[in-house]
Amino acid sequence: MPTNNTGALAGLDRFYAVIPAGGVGTRLWPLSRAAAPKFLHDLTGSGNTLIQATYERLVGLAGEKFLVVTGQVHESAVVSQLPKLAANNLVLEPEPKDSAAAIGLAAAILYERDPEAIMGSFAADQVIGPVESFQQAVREAVATAATGKIVTIGIEPTYPSTGFGYIHAGAPLEVAGAPSALAVDEFVEKPSEAVAKEYVASGDYLWNAGMFVAPAKLMLEHLACNEPELHAGVVEIAKAWDTEDREAVLERVWPGLKKTAIDYAVAEPAAANGAVAVIPGTFTWDDVGDFAALARLNPARLDTDMTILGEHARVYSTESSGVVVSDTRRVIALIGIDDVVVVDTPDALLVTTTEHAQSVKQTVEELKAKGDSDVL
Amino acid sequence: MPTNNTGALAGLDRFYAVIPAGGVGTRLWPLSRAAAPKFLHDLTGSGNTLIQATYERLVGLAGEKFLVVTGQVHESAVVSQLPKLAANNLVLEPEPKDSAAAIGLAAAILYERDPEAIMGSFAADQVIGPVESFQQAVREAVATAATGKIVTIGIEPTYPSTGFGYIHAGAPLEVAGAPSALAVDEFVEKPSEAVAKEYVASGDYLWNAGMFVAPAKLMLEHLACNEPELHAGVVEIAKAWDTEDREAVLERVWPGLKKTAIDYAVAEPAAANGAVAVIPGTFTWDDVGDFAALARLNPARLDTDMTILGEHARVYSTESSGVVVSDTRRVIALIGIDDVVVVDTPDALLVTTTEHAQSVKQTVEELKAKGDSDVL
Repeated sequence: MPTNNTGALAGLDRFYAVIPAGGVGTRLWPLSRAAAPKFLHDLTGSGNTLIQATYERLVGLAGEKFLVVTGQVHESAVVSQLPKLAANNLVLEPEPKDSAAAIGLAAAILYERDPEAIMGSFAADQVIGPVESFQQAVREAVATAATGKIVTIGIEPTYPSTGFGYIHAGAPLEVAGAPSALAVDEFVEKPSEAVAKEYVASGDYLWNAGMFVAPAKLMLEHLACNEPELHAGVVEIAKAWDTEDREAVLERVWPGLKKTAIDYAVAEPAAANGAVAVIPGTFTWDDVGDFAALARLNPARLDTDMTILGEHARVYSTESSGVVVSDTRRVIALIGIDDVVVVDTPDALLVTTTEHAQSVKQTVEELKAKGDSDVL
Repeated sequence: MPTNNTGALAGLDRFYAVIPAGGVGTRLWPLSRAAAPKFLHDLTGSGNTLIQATYERLVGLAGEKFLVVTGQVHESAVVSQLPKLAANNLVLEPEPKDSAAAIGLAAAILYERDPEAIMGSFAADQVIGPVESFQQAVREAVATAATGKIVTIGIEPTYPSTGFGYIHAGAPLEVAGAPSALAVDEFVEKPSEAVAKEYVASGDYLWNAGMFVAPAKLMLEHLACNEPELHAGVVEIAKAWDTEDREAVLERVWPGLKKTAIDYAVAEPAAANGAVAVIPGTFTWDDVGDFAALARLNPARLDTDMTILGEHARVYSTESSGVVVSDTRRVIALIGIDDVVVVDTPDALLVTTTEHAQSVKQTVEELKAKGDSDVL
């Protein structure tokens, strides 16, 4: 197995960054929606959209070696937001097929291009900082992957979340250049609150942020074992990818691919085989799961209790607190209302509270059921 | 003094309905605003705007004998909302001058047209029901006015409001056709809560709803005593009104007229002279002072706790209560928020609570101060 001699940089010359950019982010409706999912929005007031920030976090490690996987409908938005991305490094899905197909195809394309490729897959819609801590974790993950492991980067839990899956970490792995690498005993599904509390108290559990770093070849081997048809499909597409047959093969094969998550198709069975390692991430992490997250991620200015997002926001807040997302140029006046969430878009308005932020998903389902899908 | 012999109908053949349609209704911003004041809106879900409902309540008594006084900027809206109003019965103010000038000019025009006219002035933005009770009170007021009184219709208070002025009623007047007519001892300003409670407990006080019924000649005599310049001005305009000089005289005289309320210019001093009577109204009455009133006036449907107003409203309400006014076609989703007030217009959005509904006025003042007057 080829390695280099630079310690912490072991394998980094083989590193390719993969950014799966899918998922609507239903709990962030009406800001995030089918035509404009959350990764295309600046949800942190940083001036960068989430996918731009994801790209910027990785460019220092990957250089130009990227693969962005997104829906065909988002092509123009992604191209305009990531102007440095080479056209050949943009993978457009004809329709969404969940993460196993997206990441599997990325692995297969990279393997065709470079059989020694170590891929690192990082969702386009997470908020992470500081960048240096994240990059250090990725370096350790790459060094560990170079020893023949599928490596995840786990997040040290800050509270007993019942909304995330957990990684049960095991013994230290003693990898050169990856002093914090641990074995993974198993991945566990979203727990009850009582179980989550036990996990956090034990110190042995990390949040599963869906970050995977591994040799493309190894990802494909595990995919072949667990989902042989899906594997055959993505390999067939990948072999045609850098040829003139790309479109034809993609259009023929993609629609038949199974919809399943990379966790089931690769990570969980691989962990059961002892093939998975974890690097505990010391950075802060947020998956921006709902509008309450926006208030966390964008503290209100000192002179107000209201977090305001939006380039053209014209918000008048009196005796109020919470978060306002303005995607219009309308004046928004708030009077005497606490912990409010107001999301104002040209064709839909949401008014709720930070406490009820998770319930937005149900409202979206109701809209769909009642035929108001023009605003979804 | 000419009367007829039909008892309850005494004087009704002399009756002219006057509708002063002014006032922005700042507490109903952003629905009500300078260009579209509240009387132009259907705030009760009845299908009629407030001025249309006011007209309909009076047409059974006045027939075609109306005078509507409004701003020049509202001409097209009023003409389209009141298609039966004769063009000659629409009085357009070049600029707002408060109620004494508006009602004084109406009195002067009616006096020129019919020296025996009994005018009844009823604001365009009040909600009243049932119509029969209101009309009965007006009939009694007209019969009483025919005896040479300025007659107000008072509202029996339902709670100790500190937001309205009160009428201190005195002894019964024994007027034929007006069995409930009482003398008025005095008008009193908006009281403190303690005083308001005393008023309500005494049974001798009525809310002053600003309704005045009186011979036009008598209104002008009192105006001449208390505001001689204003009187001279409106008489000068009125003498030119039904001539080709109308515009020229109006443009010349109107801008110099004093801004004052009819209460100060006529009603209060007349009461001190013993010239005012009151008919206690047994109808329900609301001046739609704020958005909390909309919730009162438009009870939520049985299957929801949310009052929804707006022709094209697309409201999804989950575990929420309050009032939504939709002046757009946008989808509005409300989740887990009680006693909320949401007013959605094309260029401005208000989110508050029924409890804070009165504070809307301060926000409008803030908008004005900060230069966002494009939405006022």
